[in-house]
Formats: sequence, structure tokens, C-alpha cells
Amino acid sequence: MTISTVGLDADDTLWHSESHFLVTEQRFGALVSPWLPSEEAAEKLLTRERANLEVFGYGVKGFTLSMIETAIEASGGAIPAEALQQIVNWGKEMLSHPVDLLPGVEATIDALADHYRLVLITKGDLFHQESKIAESGLAERFHHVEILSEKSPTHYRRVLDRHGVEPSEFLMAGNSLRSDVLPVIEIGSYGVHIPYGIIWGHERVDRTELEPSWHHLDRITDLPQLLGTLV
Amino acid sequence: MTISTVGLDADDTLWHSESHFLVTEQRFGALVSPWLPSEEAAEKLLTRERANLEVFGYGVKGFTLSMIETAIEASGGAIPAEALQQIVNWGKEMLSHPVDLLPGVEATIDALADHYRLVLITKGDLFHQESKIAESGLAERFHHVEILSEKSPTHYRRVLDRHGVEPSEFLMAGNSLRSDVLPVIEIGSYGVHIPYGIIWGHERVDRTELEPSWHHLDRITDLPQLLGTLV
Repeated sequence: MTISTVGLDADDTLWHSESHFLVTEQRFGALVSPWLPSEEAAEKLLTRERANLEVFGYGVKGFTLSMIETAIEASGGAIPAEALQQIVNWGKEMLSHPVDLLPGVEATIDALADHYRLVLITKGDLFHQESKIAESGLAERFHHVEILSEKSPTHYRRVLDRHGVEPSEFLMAGNSLRSDVLPVIEIGSYGVHIPYGIIWGHERVDRTELEPSWHHLDRITDLPQLLGTLV
Repeated sequence: MTISTVGLDADDTLWHSESHFLVTEQRFGALVSPWLPSEEAAEKLLTRERANLEVFGYGVKGFTLSMIETAIEASGGAIPAEALQQIVNWGKEMLSHPVDLLPGVEATIDALADHYRLVLITKGDLFHQESKIAESGLAERFHHVEILSEKSPTHYRRVLDRHGVEPSEFLMAGNSLRSDVLPVIEIGSYGVHIPYGIIWGHERVDRTELEPSWHHLDRITDLPQLLGTLV
């Protein structure tokens, strides 16, 4: 069976996202530096974010609340309220940040759209993801946009069922092995890893978990060519 | 054309939600009472929430961040960090609160499911809405679950298009005139208003805006009977 449908991740696959988190984490490290060395700040924040995932889910608002909690805890309650307002302002800045497309994204999507049904598959905050998709100007090139709360094999299976696509005719490409590659391989689809420079601690996976059944590309612009070799 | 598809709102239509916001708002009023009389606290919080909607969207996480900002502003930065942690804890409590179904909801949904295609149509935070739907035990009685970032005529039209439903064969029932009734009447569907005891300031509409083309029910258990009279 040939590939009919190509799923693309959004954050850090089509546009920059993790770089904005990193800038904010660095600012956060400076803010809490009276109480914590900066390596510890990053570690404590990640621990808090992970603990909060099951109640907040993914996205900037939960990240902002996790920064507030980490700052209060790290300072033993001594951090002044204005510093916490500063954290809220960073959250708003991230939510309002213009969308920066990664190089070659538009041309690649145009090339793929001629031959495949394209589906944008992203996870996280519904409102923020919709805003970014609208602002990117790419929405109309996709047959469907799927914003999921998590990217598990079950979630992918549900998306394919909804659109009547067999796993064997589906390829997913994205920057996260954990979210974009491993779960689609598990359901019998093709997975393509296109790393972004920075990877969020929570998305890291041990490479030994991986079967050699996924593809690796350095840049999204190589995707049309790879697809040509698969069919 | 007869009605084939019934849309049901979730928060304050199938289960309690606004009552949890109200409890938190009262706690918030007490927390900021050293700086603000309680009526003013509620008003300032609503103003802040509305201003933040375009960057946060709907949901508990944005509400929590708005409480934090309002408390910092109202206290001129004097509020201690532990009080702000308390606000974060209330947000988490709301996000983890068990789902309380409204009276008669299960029986009504069972009765409707025999005759109509049921779609759950809710707005707000994807992660929190999915958690509540899963916990409610009602998910499998619905053909589809649609979680929207906003409930505008355009959003409803998109949902109906996606499922191949004509506006004239669609009825939407919910507690908000603004979100569940007015926009569906605008696209030519049936709207049924089933008020909840408490209404969030942002959802209030002036009744003079309304054409007399919507239906009013005191409780969801009357919905099957109303549907019987419409077809």
C-alpha cells in the first residue's frame, strides 16, 4: 500500500517553539538566582512541570503556573509579588509571540500537498495552537488539523479511524521521537524524525528503546524526497 | 426536515462547573479582603479575565493566572508569595475536582441516544474538558465530542459541515444563551436554553438582543419531550 496521508507536527517542526521556552527558562533562572544556582533552577522547574502535567496538560499556561510554583518554593516564599507578575508577563509574551516558520516549511508543504493528504497533528493548549495555526497562514493547505491532549498510539489510531486511513498508508514527521515517531511506529505507520536544535527534557527518550524502523532527516525540506523513496 | 442531531453543551448543562468557580471566587474575595471590598474583588477579577481571554482563552488555568494578577495589582504588590501559592492550589483543586452530573442527565442522554445522533460540544481547555468527559462516563453515548476554543456561528458551521449535518436538522441545548443558543439560531438551527443557577458575567447577554426563536427549558429532563413536539 502506498502512503496517502502525511501527518506533520507543528511546534519545532513547522515553527519555532522550544527556543521561546528556553529564553524564558533563562530569564527564570536569573530571576530565582538569589535563591538557586541556575542549573538547579532548570532542574527544579522540569521536575515541577512533569509533576503538574497530569493536572495542567501541555502548554504555556501550565508552564507559567509551574514557574510561579517553583519560584515560590525555591525562595521559601520570600520572592516578591512583582517578580511573580513578571513571570505571568513572560507567559503572555510567549502566548502572543509571532509565529516564526522554520526554513523551507512553506515550499515543502506546497510540494507535499500536491501528492498527499496533509494533516497537521499537534498537542497542547487548544487556544494557543489554534492561534498559531491561524497566524502561520498554513491552515488551508491541510485537509485537517488535529489538536490532541496527548500523542499516544491510541490518539493516533483515533485520528486515522476518523479519517478512514489505514496505518500502513500513514507517515508522521516531527521533531519528537517520543510524540511523533515512537507511537506511530507502534501502530504500524511510518515515522520520520526531524530533530530541532533544542529538546524539552520531558520529550527525551533513550535511543536504545528504538527499533531501527524510523527515518531520520536533518531538515523538513528533505521530506518530499524521502517520501518518493518509500512508495 | 426533522431533527437528526442534538448538540449538548457540557459545563453547567451536564455537570456542575460555575459553582466551583463561584466557591473559588469567594475564597479569592476573602484572600484579597485586606486590600479590596469583596464586591470590588469580583468585579476587578472579571475585568481582568475578560482582558486576558484573547491571550489565555477559556478555562481554569487562565482563570488562575487572572486571579494571581488581580491579587498582585489589588495589593500593590504587597500580597505574600504564599497567598499566591494558595491561588495556584485552588486552580489545581478545580482541575482535579470530581465531575458532578446534574440531576437526570444520564437518563435524558439515554432517552435521546435512541432517536438522535448526539454530539457533545464544549469550549475551553482541551485537557481539562477531555478529563471531565472521560470521568463522566458519558463519552461513549456521544457520536462525537467537539472541544472548541470558541462557540461562534463559524465554529458551529464547521462542526456541522464536518459531520455532514444541515443546520435545519440540528438542535443545540445548553445553559449559555451567548454560546449555546444565539450562534446556532444565527446559522438556522434550533437553540434550547436550559439555564444553570449561576451565570458567569462574561456569558451574560441582554435579553432584548434575542429573537423569540429559541426554546427555554427549566431542566434537561424536559428535552426529549420538547424534541417530540418539534418534529
